[in-house]
Amino acid sequence: MKIALAQINYHIGNFESNVEKIKTAIRQAKDSGADLVVFAELAVSGYPPRDFLEFDDFINKCQQAITDIATKCKGIAAIVGSPTKNPEFHGKNLFNSAYFLADGKVRNVRHKTLLPNYDVFDEYRYFEPNKKFSIIEYKETKIALTICEDLWNIGHDPLYTVNPMDELIGQEPDFMINIAASPFNYNQHQTRNCILKKNVKKYGIPLFYVNHVGAQTELLFDGGSQVIDGNGQLIDELSYFEEDFRIFDTNNLEPSQLPKPIEKYPADNIKIGLIHDALVMGIRNYFQKLGFTKAILGLSGGIDSALTLVLAVEALGSENVLSVMLPSQFSSDHSVNDSKTLIENLGSPAEIIIIEEAYQAFEHSLKPIFKNLPFGLAEENLQARIRGVLLMALSNKFGYILLNTSNKSEAAVGYGTLYGDMCGGLSVLGDVYKTEVFGLARYINSEKEIIPENIITKPPSAELRPDQKDSDSLPEYDILDKILFQYIEQRQGPKELIEMGFDEAVVKKTLKLVNTNEYKRHQTPPILRVSPKAFGMGRRMPIVGKYLA
Amino acid sequence: MKIALAQINYHIGNFESNVEKIKTAIRQAKDSGADLVVFAELAVSGYPPRDFLEFDDFINKCQQAITDIATKCKGIAAIVGSPTKNPEFHGKNLFNSAYFLADGKVRNVRHKTLLPNYDVFDEYRYFEPNKKFSIIEYKETKIALTICEDLWNIGHDPLYTVNPMDELIGQEPDFMINIAASPFNYNQHQTRNCILKKNVKKYGIPLFYVNHVGAQTELLFDGGSQVIDGNGQLIDELSYFEEDFRIFDTNNLEPSQLPKPIEKYPADNIKIGLIHDALVMGIRNYFQKLGFTKAILGLSGGIDSALTLVLAVEALGSENVLSVMLPSQFSSDHSVNDSKTLIENLGSPAEIIIIEEAYQAFEHSLKPIFKNLPFGLAEENLQARIRGVLLMALSNKFGYILLNTSNKSEAAVGYGTLYGDMCGGLSVLGDVYKTEVFGLARYINSEKEIIPENIITKPPSAELRPDQKDSDSLPEYDILDKILFQYIEQRQGPKELIEMGFDEAVVKKTLKLVNTNEYKRHQTPPILRVSPKAFGMGRRMPIVGKYLA
Repeated sequence: MKIALAQINYHIGNFESNVEKIKTAIRQAKDSGADLVVFAELAVSGYPPRDFLEFDDFINKCQQAITDIATKCKGIAAIVGSPTKNPEFHGKNLFNSAYFLADGKVRNVRHKTLLPNYDVFDEYRYFEPNKKFSIIEYKETKIALTICEDLWNIGHDPLYTVNPMDELIGQEPDFMINIAASPFNYNQHQTRNCILKKNVKKYGIPLFYVNHVGAQTELLFDGGSQVIDGNGQLIDELSYFEEDFRIFDTNNLEPSQLPKPIEKYPADNIKIGLIHDALVMGIRNYFQKLGFTKAILGLSGGIDSALTLVLAVEALGSENVLSVMLPSQFSSDHSVNDSKTLIENLGSPAEIIIIEEAYQAFEHSLKPIFKNLPFGLAEENLQARIRGVLLMALSNKFGYILLNTSNKSEAAVGYGTLYGDMCGGLSVLGDVYKTEVFGLARYINSEKEIIPENIITKPPSAELRPDQKDSDSLPEYDILDKILFQYIEQRQGPKELIEMGFDEAVVKKTLKLVNTNEYKRHQTPPILRVSPKAFGMGRRMPIVGKYLA
Repeated sequence: MKIALAQINYHIGNFESNVEKIKTAIRQAKDSGADLVVFAELAVSGYPPRDFLEFDDFINKCQQAITDIATKCKGIAAIVGSPTKNPEFHGKNLFNSAYFLADGKVRNVRHKTLLPNYDVFDEYRYFEPNKKFSIIEYKETKIALTICEDLWNIGHDPLYTVNPMDELIGQEPDFMINIAASPFNYNQHQTRNCILKKNVKKYGIPLFYVNHVGAQTELLFDGGSQVIDGNGQLIDELSYFEEDFRIFDTNNLEPSQLPKPIEKYPADNIKIGLIHDALVMGIRNYFQKLGFTKAILGLSGGIDSALTLVLAVEALGSENVLSVMLPSQFSSDHSVNDSKTLIENLGSPAEIIIIEEAYQAFEHSLKPIFKNLPFGLAEENLQARIRGVLLMALSNKFGYILLNTSNKSEAAVGYGTLYGDMCGGLSVLGDVYKTEVFGLARYINSEKEIIPENIITKPPSAELRPDQKDSDSLPEYDILDKILFQYIEQRQGPKELIEMGFDEAVVKKTLKLVNTNEYKRHQTPPILRVSPKAFGMGRRMPIVGKYLA
């Protein structure tokens, strides 16, 4: 049997576009002599459709899409993910399903058993878990069809008490097909390959796996669809971060001669390379899917905005990213000069607006109330907010989306001004620690200097008061980031952190900053997720909580 | 047996305060001769603890709290909610549990079976569902102990395939105890009383029910703990929106002579009365739990900010709420005058800051880029953002929390300026439609005119350009709110709305506005939830979605 894997960038709720892409791939597969073409989980709706699933109208549109696609499945079969209605009175109203389409109609439907409900996943919010298990027979072949998480219960902390493949294997399937919507993080390619291989080793039959690719706001999908033979050998792996399409013959599974997608990255810098490509895709798709082409950002002379600019230029084209320099009396000369050099290197447009005039006006208007109180946090924030107002004015006037340039270390400890530098439609670096920001800058400069060296080497500063340095208020970033990683990604508590050797006072101060700044993060733009634990939909914290605060 | 119900306002993660309150109530119950005192679901941690539950350190603190509380349970028993660790290898790591404490130690533990995972609930994110059922025997009495949702699977759309009481009733319990964390909405008192009564009618034994009271950021708990006898007769219902404590004798369940909490409200205006009290509690608890006392808000002369001010004054005291009037050239004379009258009526402090100077400065700074482009949306937003900057400057300087004054109708259609009038630490009216805002204003004025009549009767306007009216860009609020309610609360689609008789063009425009403004709502402050479907944690929508957009 010849099986085509179609790795597609879907758009949530854009049925017209999703159906068109699916039909095109069916045509392509049929023209290439495939017997079956496999699409991803919830392909017709895009993933995650979130609470659109609560609308009958939305579910009906999914069903119409399936009916429409089925008509194209003549002389070829297709597996397509879609929500379906649960006909039972008890239980949730929907299943997360895989349709097997053939002979112009729906031939079989299988439902997802294991519903991920952790981190960014909310599937038990919508779906009833499957409880019946049967293989699909097609052209004298027996297929064990499962959906994403169904294969993921064989790690070191199994979250579910059943295992769908344990139920199916007794029916002697010839191979497994798994359709997925498994989002990227910088460990995901390894985790995914490991889990899939474990399944093959356990069940002893080949596996055909199709994932989503592309960005849906914060969730990035890297693709990596693949085929593993019955011995656990990787036959082929589709591209990362782009659409792809390949055909395999089940009777002749020979390892592909094509380079694996991971080989594109320098072996000693895979993580940074992956983050780089993920962020570029994340920006590009955010704009495409919202129908925008142009970005704006404030270029401070610091490394975060410099890196954001480079990534945006890669994603959108240099002509489509406007940098605005917004110096104040506290900005160092090198800030503007370094920014100008960067802009020249990129050939992208720029503007300068001095914030002094607006600052003076605010100071004057506030004087009757502020009286002679000394310069402080309010005045620092005022500068950041004036910049936010100016950038948003340009955004509104000319139809730019403002890119936020805050990094994860700042977001974690609340080192940023709400409605100031925390403005933006999309946070590019909000899941990238400061130490990783440096890594990305070095990675970008690895062939030639794009980001001026001085931007990378100067001590980080918000430049909101004379001679300010980040290290005046925060631990050095190499310590801070380690504590933050242990607390945020690894969920270690104060006791464990102190046992690891971090200074007790620094630990307590840091965790308190993280927890008391939840109110700020509540109002940040969506953050492109590249780590296993990003701020945003995958990390849900109380605001009035009084824990470690 | 004498049973005390302790209806307490807990604070998430504040173990010291929660344990102290629980111990005090145990002492009170014991002093009053009670055999058993019942506390709410997840009492020791507060509800919802959200992702704090993923920290071992947090769970250990919960266990320590239980151990500590148990030592006080001598000569009296207590039922206390807490997360517990799941000892099994497979399944989620925690249970949502009820401890039965007696003789100074843990005597029994029961786990929650039905884990709500819809709207604002995420319980399957953390907890493994219970699968074993047994009653608790104490002092020759058999108690069927369940947790909140466990009793809620008997409505018209049962979400679960099991019913814990169906399992327990065969063990012939004498009565049911249910400990809950069931948040308020304006229908909740009816729904709750109806569901609890249904259980009594089905199982034929009395029910003792204890709920949370108080606000945890957006989630408001109204209390309403109660006792129903075996015939379905309401014996007594504890207060709404405040802590309460009462003792009942299981051998002598006579209907209380005290007025029911609902009788406090005018029979023809219960919904508005409940919303009013919920919002006041929501503001008060938000400030208390964050350790703040003072609020600031922009008073525009419109009804939304007027209402917010009155509610904040009720919550925090008139001396603690600073109103700032921020007129522009487009502000009508009556805006400032009406505001002044309101402030006089309340006796609260106020300031005036003219935004003209900052506006001129921005206009001048932007002139080289804006050139001679006509006045438009950018300039309208600029005014709103200048107000935001001024209010935040005062907030930062003097330690006020800025209250957001946007209503639900505006939030729904994106009729507001991000980083402008959408600023604030807490949105007071973000779950209150404009038509309900009028209702609340009338309710407040029912005995004497607090909000000047002119504020209520003048046509709503943002006053950001000459002679602007909300109705220039939006359908009239009485139509708009009906469409929004059907779409947001009732999840009706365009087809159903048009069938209800709403104009097709208006429906399509409205739904498109709602869906394309998700990006704005992503960055709004937490919203006090008073409806069955509020913007925020209970409504999760894609930003790049292309459905009805």
